[in-house]
Amino acid sequence: MNTFGTIFRVALFGESHGPAVGVLIDGCPAGLPLETSDFHADLARRRGGAPGTTARREPDAPLLESGLFEGHTTGAPLLIRFANIDVDSRAYEALRGRPRPGHADLVARQKFGGFADPRGSGHHSGRLTVGLVAAGVVAKKLLRPLEVAARLVAVGGSEDIEATVAAAQASGDSVGGLIECRARHVPAGLGEPFFDTAESLLAHALFAIPAIKGVEFGAGFAAARMRGSEHNDPILDVSGASQTNHAGGVLGGITTGNELLFRVAVKPTPSIRLPQRTVDLGSGAPAEISVGGRHDACIALRVPVILEAVTAIVLADLSLLAGRLPRALTP
Amino acid sequence: MNTFGTIFRVALFGESHGPAVGVLIDGCPAGLPLETSDFHADLARRRGGAPGTTARREPDAPLLESGLFEGHTTGAPLLIRFANIDVDSRAYEALRGRPRPGHADLVARQKFGGFADPRGSGHHSGRLTVGLVAAGVVAKKLLRPLEVAARLVAVGGSEDIEATVAAAQASGDSVGGLIECRARHVPAGLGEPFFDTAESLLAHALFAIPAIKGVEFGAGFAAARMRGSEHNDPILDVSGASQTNHAGGVLGGITTGNELLFRVAVKPTPSIRLPQRTVDLGSGAPAEISVGGRHDACIALRVPVILEAVTAIVLADLSLLAGRLPRALTP
Amino acid sequence: MNTFGTIFRVALFGESHGPAVGVLIDGCPAGLPLETSDFHADLARRRGGAPGTTARREPDAPLLESGLFEGHTTGAPLLIRFANIDVDSRAYEALRGRPRPGHADLVARQKFGGFADPRGSGHHSGRLTVGLVAAGVVAKKLLRPLEVAARLVAVGGSEDIEATVAAAQASGDSVGGLIECRARHVPAGLGEPFFDTAESLLAHALFAIPAIKGVEFGAGFAAARMRGSEHNDPILDVSGASQTNHAGGVLGGITTGNELLFRVAVKPTPSIRLPQRTVDLGSGAPAEISVGGRHDACIALRVPVILEAVTAIVLADLSLLAGRLPRALTP
Amino acid sequence: MNTFGTIFRVALFGESHGPAVGVLIDGCPAGLPLETSDFHADLARRRGGAPGTTARREPDAPLLESGLFEGHTTGAPLLIRFANIDVDSRAYEALRGRPRPGHADLVARQKFGGFADPRGSGHHSGRLTVGLVAAGVVAKKLLRPLEVAARLVAVGGSEDIEATVAAAQASGDSVGGLIECRARHVPAGLGEPFFDTAESLLAHALFAIPAIKGVEFGAGFAAARMRGSEHNDPILDVSGASQTNHAGGVLGGITTGNELLFRVAVKPTPSIRLPQRTVDLGSGAPAEISVGGRHDACIALRVPVILEAVTAIVLADLSLLAGRLPRALTP
Repeated sequence: MNTFGTIFRVALFGESHGPAVGVLIDGCPAGLPLETSDFHADLARRRGGAPGTTARREPDAPLLESGLFEGHTTGAPLLIRFANIDVDSRAYEALRGRPRPGHADLVARQKFGGFADPRGSGHHSGRLTVGLVAAGVVAKKLLRPLEVAARLVAVGGSEDIEATVAAAQASGDSVGGLIECRARHVPAGLGEPFFDTAESLLAHALFAIPAIKGVEFGAGFAAARMRGSEHNDPILDVSGASQTNHAGGVLGGITTGNELLFRVAVKPTPSIRLPQRTVDLGSGAPAEISVGGRHDACIALRVPVILEAVTAIVLADLSLLAGRLPRALTP
Repeated sequence: MNTFGTIFRVALFGESHGPAVGVLIDGCPAGLPLETSDFHADLARRRGGAPGTTARREPDAPLLESGLFEGHTTGAPLLIRFANIDVDSRAYEALRGRPRPGHADLVARQKFGGFADPRGSGHHSGRLTVGLVAAGVVAKKLLRPLEVAARLVAVGGSEDIEATVAAAQASGDSVGGLIECRARHVPAGLGEPFFDTAESLLAHALFAIPAIKGVEFGAGFAAARMRGSEHNDPILDVSGASQTNHAGGVLGGITTGNELLFRVAVKPTPSIRLPQRTVDLGSGAPAEISVGGRHDACIALRVPVILEAVTAIVLADLSLLAGRLPRALTP
Repeated sequence: MNTFGTIFRVALFGESHGPAVGVLIDGCPAGLPLETSDFHADLARRRGGAPGTTARREPDAPLLESGLFEGHTTGAPLLIRFANIDVDSRAYEALRGRPRPGHADLVARQKFGGFADPRGSGHHSGRLTVGLVAAGVVAKKLLRPLEVAARLVAVGGSEDIEATVAAAQASGDSVGGLIECRARHVPAGLGEPFFDTAESLLAHALFAIPAIKGVEFGAGFAAARMRGSEHNDPILDVSGASQTNHAGGVLGGITTGNELLFRVAVKPTPSIRLPQRTVDLGSGAPAEISVGGRHDACIALRVPVILEAVTAIVLADLSLLAGRLPRALTP
Repeated sequence: MNTFGTIFRVALFGESHGPAVGVLIDGCPAGLPLETSDFHADLARRRGGAPGTTARREPDAPLLESGLFEGHTTGAPLLIRFANIDVDSRAYEALRGRPRPGHADLVARQKFGGFADPRGSGHHSGRLTVGLVAAGVVAKKLLRPLEVAARLVAVGGSEDIEATVAAAQASGDSVGGLIECRARHVPAGLGEPFFDTAESLLAHALFAIPAIKGVEFGAGFAAARMRGSEHNDPILDVSGASQTNHAGGVLGGITTGNELLFRVAVKPTPSIRLPQRTVDLGSGAPAEISVGGRHDACIALRVPVILEAVTAIVLADLSLLAGRLPRALTP
């Protein structure tokens, strides 16, 4: 369902063109200092604005409506809302009978009996990730000095990111990207053998981010081509520090204390101006579609901070489950 | 924790060299005809025996100890046990103070305070997957006529599987592999937008299989190099049938009714005869290790049927959650 | 944690004197017609105003901020918020160092390290039940024609409710009450043998309502004094209809199709004007406290509609789990 | 479903007349010394044998089949099995078409489409509680020095237990009972405000015990007849110690550190020799039934140790969730 986590639980709500989106966080330890300015940097990283990102301009001002008292978390659920301000649903009206290829339009219609909100992809919108980023800010602060950092490595198979995005955009097209994420100072021992391995929980949350189509840890798919003598990471000392990190910081599903390292594949934004084949839901006849509205030419540009958020959310929950984070911080 | 699923729940138990391993399945609909012969084919596919697989010989006779009456499931929890017969722990005694690179030896020790069963990797052993395969047999039978089929595509980057495994084995080494899995007749509409997407749940379960280091759906990591006009699957009709299947049968986290398609990377078996660097846990000094015992030179040879099992387990649970499978089958 | 339910999940948020309270509902089927006027009757029943209830006046206008489109639920999470308007925190400032007997003041302080919001009991406030009632309205509408009705049977051991409450209030005291709840047209077969029996799930949710100290089904505590020949309900026909209903509509943890019947004990409101013994948290010295502010003399007056809500929430979830409610209603 | 708990999770399996019953315990901390003799005392308390209890004689020898190594728990799932030895299904064959009043026979048939195991109530049998008691032994040992003690207070409304049971048995009837349970040294701060209050979780698990029809904490149903000035427990010091214990050790859903105190009502055993009205499932005609087989005249005689077990299971899970029990005990 639409909740993730065991102790530190996040639940997303809202629609792209509804009154608000946001996140409800349960299980956040009491005593964490928190104010709206804590959210600015990460929300800005996620927000559109750079070339290749949507023209929609949302202020993304977090409204902290519960779980906070005198500048500290109380241990009660934290509700963080974001009003939707810059909404323009005109472009979607035209698309309502013609599902966009690569989008959830048609399956949402099938699953929810025609009642899903179609405006701007409704609850399926990337707009929902603002709530993930907000929860990630809280989780990152809880986990300090643990650090999570993700970066866009390539788009369209090219490391010349700016030019590749610009070329795709100029031709009415979009382009995918590859992102790498690393976390340092992750304690050893997080995760369970079956089924809640650290990789399982991370992958679960990562594949919930719209447009993610692949996740690999450490050597990842390259491991399928390697020999054991090459892939095994030599152990350097009793802490488990290793000479290489083909394992990506996880062995047997449990964090080793080495750097956590994974990569994800982000598919190209499905909304493109170029004409595509679809079907007219009224007549059943083949139809052509060109998607207007305001879209990212490369959604991967905005995903790194979302990966970091998801990673921090998972690690916060695992830390609480392992008894490594208290339910109330010392005043 | 060591349970997976919401209605159709599986819990694994046992250790490689303990008295038994197996699975407890909750939420299985009543009225499914089931007998021990149903398990033979899939258990045989998982079992060692072919060149490149372990010399350990387990009969893998499933003991159905609860939840079955007069040849049908009753709706109560199903306990399926497998006695461990062919146990030889001698090789492990020598390794106890020297953690094997690429294995969970050291993290298990750290996480469980030195109390983890070290014999044959204990609860971390691939032996535990016999329970997954057994649960998969039940799930596959429930899902008919849905079909799941996985196959080993390549090992060590080579499609000449037999020769590549033999070469690795001959040199005291091991090799990784790439497996592809497809499911047909998957109904549209399974999965939730956040966080229990079909991809999230599959990846969660897949990454719990020992040695899996990457999961990708449809075009997967290739999507990161593609343009939208290339990646989007043209929609052919109102059912959502598409011309290509770069989405791998999932859009917006929800199954589309097209073939479900994913690939996983399996790392090389970490246990190899070739000498490797590790540490002596007693003295803290560097040490060398050569792993004897009975191991697979290519664990990927045995993984396809496990992938199928995990896929069926996830789809059975999603089908129950969607109300597409009844809690009691019609007599 | 602060979530309840498996498919139909409710999560409460907010504090008595914070900006808002409310509920996030996940798993609500798509296609349910819903508008703010649906909530008025039940919210009015819960609201203070009658003699013996708090003087606080909240408009309780539900803000439906997500999961609704063109007057129907969409299948996405429903956020229902209520702004707190009539907040007066002055009385609480004085109490901050002196925990009120019978309240959670001291344990909340211990559990959350002194960071809990103390104003009006913060997240522990009965104000939070407005979210339960709102979720109950949705659940009741989903369950039609099933009907749930609760009524206050007695207060202070007396059936003369009005006079008993008035007398307690006049003396600066409060009084407890006994409530009975019945649900008709409950389908047979809801609940599991272990551990999610229908009684277990109902009791779980009921004991989360502030001030509930006892729950009994059917004959309840009287059953402890009965013989089997007296307690067993004679079976009248193959539907399971029974002549008496000592079972309260549940056998072996599973609903029988007979009327669901239970009673709960509501303790007296702990906030009273009469002086009580407590401790000064600063000095550790004994102290006396007389609780001002605006309180109910008999909280049980407002609880029946909350019981109904909780019952409907549990039955909606059980119906979805049993596949008896579809995830999308037919348009 | 058939699992309970978040970190310390128990799952029951088996049928009264199947090959085995037992429990799978997940999340048990590593390093707990455990051997079969630890189970003898509590299993003996649960076992039949005294006047008024069933004539069935089971040795109840616990088979610890996983999660144990060199006399200590390993942190992996613990499987504890009990073979069913003394099985006699003859009496049930005759009853198959005539559901017993007060039993789950008919609802089990309805819920599971006629596939439920009818022998000795199948999975609904009180025999399943042997697994609860076994899990309770583990939980009690984990929680030391916390102590849980339950005792039978009255049967059939009489404190002369022996005579009352004997009289019921002599007349082919059965009788219900009232049990009180107390836990000392419970830490303050366990439980959540909504919905996982300490009372909610305890009641959830208690109502899963067959035959429990009422649960009350502290003053319980008497609180409904009390005034606030009488019910509120005066606070004696900053630890929260109180002069009386009408709250039963829980305020606002959270343990106070005072003694945890609750009572449960156990209904009379529904299986009685006296004739009762039922229905013939084949013809639909009214029928009479007299239940032979081996039954308890007063099941409440055997319930105290089960209450203790359930209480310990819940408190162990809450302690782990609160970070008050480590995942690995210090060697």
